[in-house]
Amino acid sequence: MMMLSRTPGRKHGYILQCLRVYGRRPSSTAAPTNSLSDVKIQDSFTRSSKFWIPTGGIAATENEDAHNKLIRAGYLRQSHAGIFHMLPLGQKVQEKLERLIDKYMLQLGASKVSLSSISSQALWQQTNRLDGYGPELFRFDDRKEVPYLLAPTHEEEITTLVSKTIKSYKSLPLRLYQIGRKYRDEIRPRQGVLRSREFLMKDLYTFDYSIPSAISTYEEIREAYSRLFNELKLPYLVAEASSGDIGGDLSHEYHLPSPIGEDNVISCNSCDYVANEELASARLESMKEASPETNSGDVLAANVWRGVSKDRSTLINVWYPASFSGDSINTHAIKSALPELDSSLNDSTPFWSSTIPIGKSSEPRKQVRLVNIIDYRLGAPFASALSTNPSPETLLPKNADLDLSTITTDYLTASDDQIPLNVLRVRDGDNCPRCDSGKLKVQKAIELGHTFHLGTRYSDPLEAHVQVPSHLIEGEVALKSAGDMKTVSMQMGCHGIGLSRIIGAVADHLADAKGLNWPRAIAPFEVVVVPGRGLEQDGVIVAEYLANSQAHRPLDLLLDDRTESLPWKMRDADLVGYPVVVILGKGWNSERLCEVQCRRLSSVSHVLLEDLPIYINQLLAQL
Amino acid sequence: MMMLSRTPGRKHGYILQCLRVYGRRPSSTAAPTNSLSDVKIQDSFTRSSKFWIPTGGIAATENEDAHNKLIRAGYLRQSHAGIFHMLPLGQKVQEKLERLIDKYMLQLGASKVSLSSISSQALWQQTNRLDGYGPELFRFDDRKEVPYLLAPTHEEEITTLVSKTIKSYKSLPLRLYQIGRKYRDEIRPRQGVLRSREFLMKDLYTFDYSIPSAISTYEEIREAYSRLFNELKLPYLVAEASSGDIGGDLSHEYHLPSPIGEDNVISCNSCDYVANEELASARLESMKEASPETNSGDVLAANVWRGVSKDRSTLINVWYPASFSGDSINTHAIKSALPELDSSLNDSTPFWSSTIPIGKSSEPRKQVRLVNIIDYRLGAPFASALSTNPSPETLLPKNADLDLSTITTDYLTASDDQIPLNVLRVRDGDNCPRCDSGKLKVQKAIELGHTFHLGTRYSDPLEAHVQVPSHLIEGEVALKSAGDMKTVSMQMGCHGIGLSRIIGAVADHLADAKGLNWPRAIAPFEVVVVPGRGLEQDGVIVAEYLANSQAHRPLDLLLDDRTESLPWKMRDADLVGYPVVVILGKGWNSERLCEVQCRRLSSVSHVLLEDLPIYINQLLAQL
Repeated sequence: MMMLSRTPGRKHGYILQCLRVYGRRPSSTAAPTNSLSDVKIQDSFTRSSKFWIPTGGIAATENEDAHNKLIRAGYLRQSHAGIFHMLPLGQKVQEKLERLIDKYMLQLGASKVSLSSISSQALWQQTNRLDGYGPELFRFDDRKEVPYLLAPTHEEEITTLVSKTIKSYKSLPLRLYQIGRKYRDEIRPRQGVLRSREFLMKDLYTFDYSIPSAISTYEEIREAYSRLFNELKLPYLVAEASSGDIGGDLSHEYHLPSPIGEDNVISCNSCDYVANEELASARLESMKEASPETNSGDVLAANVWRGVSKDRSTLINVWYPASFSGDSINTHAIKSALPELDSSLNDSTPFWSSTIPIGKSSEPRKQVRLVNIIDYRLGAPFASALSTNPSPETLLPKNADLDLSTITTDYLTASDDQIPLNVLRVRDGDNCPRCDSGKLKVQKAIELGHTFHLGTRYSDPLEAHVQVPSHLIEGEVALKSAGDMKTVSMQMGCHGIGLSRIIGAVADHLADAKGLNWPRAIAPFEVVVVPGRGLEQDGVIVAEYLANSQAHRPLDLLLDDRTESLPWKMRDADLVGYPVVVILGKGWNSERLCEVQCRRLSSVSHVLLEDLPIYINQLLAQL
Repeated sequence: MMMLSRTPGRKHGYILQCLRVYGRRPSSTAAPTNSLSDVKIQDSFTRSSKFWIPTGGIAATENEDAHNKLIRAGYLRQSHAGIFHMLPLGQKVQEKLERLIDKYMLQLGASKVSLSSISSQALWQQTNRLDGYGPELFRFDDRKEVPYLLAPTHEEEITTLVSKTIKSYKSLPLRLYQIGRKYRDEIRPRQGVLRSREFLMKDLYTFDYSIPSAISTYEEIREAYSRLFNELKLPYLVAEASSGDIGGDLSHEYHLPSPIGEDNVISCNSCDYVANEELASARLESMKEASPETNSGDVLAANVWRGVSKDRSTLINVWYPASFSGDSINTHAIKSALPELDSSLNDSTPFWSSTIPIGKSSEPRKQVRLVNIIDYRLGAPFASALSTNPSPETLLPKNADLDLSTITTDYLTASDDQIPLNVLRVRDGDNCPRCDSGKLKVQKAIELGHTFHLGTRYSDPLEAHVQVPSHLIEGEVALKSAGDMKTVSMQMGCHGIGLSRIIGAVADHLADAKGLNWPRAIAPFEVVVVPGRGLEQDGVIVAEYLANSQAHRPLDLLLDDRTESLPWKMRDADLVGYPVVVILGKGWNSERLCEVQCRRLSSVSHVLLEDLPIYINQLLAQL
């Protein structure tokens, strides 16, 4: 790594000058009752003694995860199941993320708002999401028994706000964002801030009067997201995504690869295809090379996976080659063939019984349908063998209490638009659906953000309409026409970034055995100065010099002025994960050299104070 | 007002230079689909076209209040009863308040945290506050039926956090603060953000190991609060206060006088005595001049006010001179004489009946007590007349279904420490309780902040203990002693500032018929530049020049680049309440003079562009 030359002649000049100046300062001996009060001069850096970092007292566990390191280093604490307090270090990372996001939202011409965390259940009923979210919503009644909820997202509230305020296309495009707390009563909160019940999100909502304008907005936001995530200098993935319950059809996810991620991102080693697992299977458009297995015409040995529809009236067999195991099943793919599938059940076979009523009715069920979904690898030969001779032993699970002769039985081998069905998850080495030669790679990843084009999913039910001159929206369907003006629902987009998520994901991504590590953009401090015992005053000089060394943007700097030993403070600096650590130890005593450590770049150098600002900036520019 | 001289020779130089530079810029004609995307260069000021201010569309009401102006000018909107969305202008005022508070908290050596909004009911039971808050708490169960609440304040959570983390006196003093949302299910939310159900608060909690240290902390915080409120340049009052349910005995409130305030602040015209009404009556220490009425020895004509205790077992008559009306009664004063008084009832007489059971028991009540509280103005002669011949007609309300002979009847004329009882509110002109010559003044006011010394109110039940060397806490009672160390509960303080409250109070305090007005420190923008039609490009030049005119701290500046007429934009600027308004109109066209308006200083001047930065700074320094 880089090592600045030491120029012996200019070694002591600045230091001595500093010491002379500092020698005249008021002494910093602590008053007996209140040590915080005596330093009246405002430092241009932060002192550990005035910045609460409760480290120590918690033992490291073997192979501890990043979440545990966040706790041990003093970033956060769990207060209740899946609910966290941010301590000063975590709060500072959070604030840096906020400023980073503010910067790129400003570039987009987005205005910042702050919507209430409390929303009304009546409003959510209008968009039909109250039942959809189900038990994940924290719900409560106020003292007048009006039903409210803690908002997990704000489409309903912002659409209502905008629809009440904006009537003319001249006020559009409009881009509004906020950074605030969201609530989701996770059934199994886990991995700390990666899946918590209260979390910090940036949510941006966009409003346009036409689809072309909305798509142009969408593209602008994707570009801003790329610039924003680039500033973290981490290898993030942008995956095409399906839009799920939120509606719409233009959707991308921003992921950070991680073995603890709960998403699978599929990428091609040859072209730029990146998609989340859901979409990768659901949109598998071409089976250019039919598998050799189906070409042979033989009927292959098959396994079956059993499911049932949400209303319990449709029983589902999913047939796939016996060479695959049951955990290869891609329920997203089955859902896209059969949206009524209840994918929340671990075992659906209890519903394969004539005594179990349909839905909530108490009558015994009458009309049951059985659908056989056949994976393309088994193909037509298997479907024909199965349907030629339908036998209860094959089509029904053991002990199923059903009479097959009274059941309508269907056999599906292709989607509505005649694409063969692929019911298995993408595996490493599968063929790319987009290019001819590429092979797919499956990576576990953590979702940090998403962009969605919503269309009129919310503006329709909440009547967020604008009047637009007809010539500006030729070809678009209008709700009303009057003269040269048409009334249309606004075209909306919603675009999230999970701040709590980023903290957890980045902590996990950059942690090593010694501790955490942070990109410069969101590090709680860019630099820590760690003086050895007896060098406390020298530490102040170095910190002061560094903090004031740059006119355009001062370094964000912490001075570790605690009374612990130098090795203890160095271990603590490693655990906290400051990007750059400046140590005043033996080298300082003998030759006025600072030891500059950067664990992420595996760099240790000894640098003169005068050279320190430039050297540190060269390091930080890489982080 | 000040008026800078116009120097004809230097009129056009800079402008022409700017126009030449700007002439080479990319044209800003809007793309047809998306006008936000075309300006790629980041301005050093904000443009109205990129900052959502939904003004217009709402008609002004006659004698409208400041809250209505906040809505009409586009600062905020109500989403549900007592719940508000902050729009970009309101959000910006809120952020400026946050930065202002951060600055003074940093000076105090306080560290910023961010505690969860969700707290557990079990925790609040430990401090015995769950019932005390009663229906004002928003409560809910999660999906596992664990009872939670939305925190109206965070003593329980922070004390738990600190007690788990800090064991040694060496970690103290500790000062932790946050700025976040609080929740209180007000029975009658009103006056917008002055009494809302979701609101933004700064809460600072302090932890010390001894009472002297805690008092020194308290004094430091009072000083910081004074500096902070001074920066708003508004005539705030600091009132001695009683600490109410929160516990402790050192308490001050920070008020802004306002006719719509719900607090009464009492101040002396001679000495520095300022107290809230509660304390002014409760601590009325001396009756130096006994009133002439009692001196005469005659029995005065009296009125009676009837009350009942919370458990319904004590009936209360409050006797006061007939020359006062019933709304002079000070229930705080009665409560300090008889804490069991239920002060929430409008009419207590339904409980003056033998058939009404005590508390929640279904048995008829047996042991009823009747307490007569006698105001010092009536004094002993009245008490003796009353007790000599107790008659049901006098002591019981009409239709009271009670047998006086079975009731224990007491007569109170003084408090436990022998201070005569004063049951009436302080009135303008009353004598000051602190100095000999002062007269009291009663002002309606809005509470913006408070400081409380809590003592061990929370650290005792939540076991927030530290070990301290005995010699540091001589005279203090220890929970345990071992060798030279004593274990004590931490001495706590809590110190709030209501950010939402300040927005509502300042809006009310500075509003006039034309609109709102803001102190520079929290104005959404310090200056707005309003160009007339055809002067749009000149507006950009002036904004750019002003924004970059100060090296040390750039002006926070808005350019009103909307297409509306100049008079419309000027009225809107008045409504929004920017401290300084710079208008490019006729004077600019003819003589390159900017019209600078400052409504708060009643100042209108015509100033050359070159002189504008200095002139504006001189105005802002007064705001």
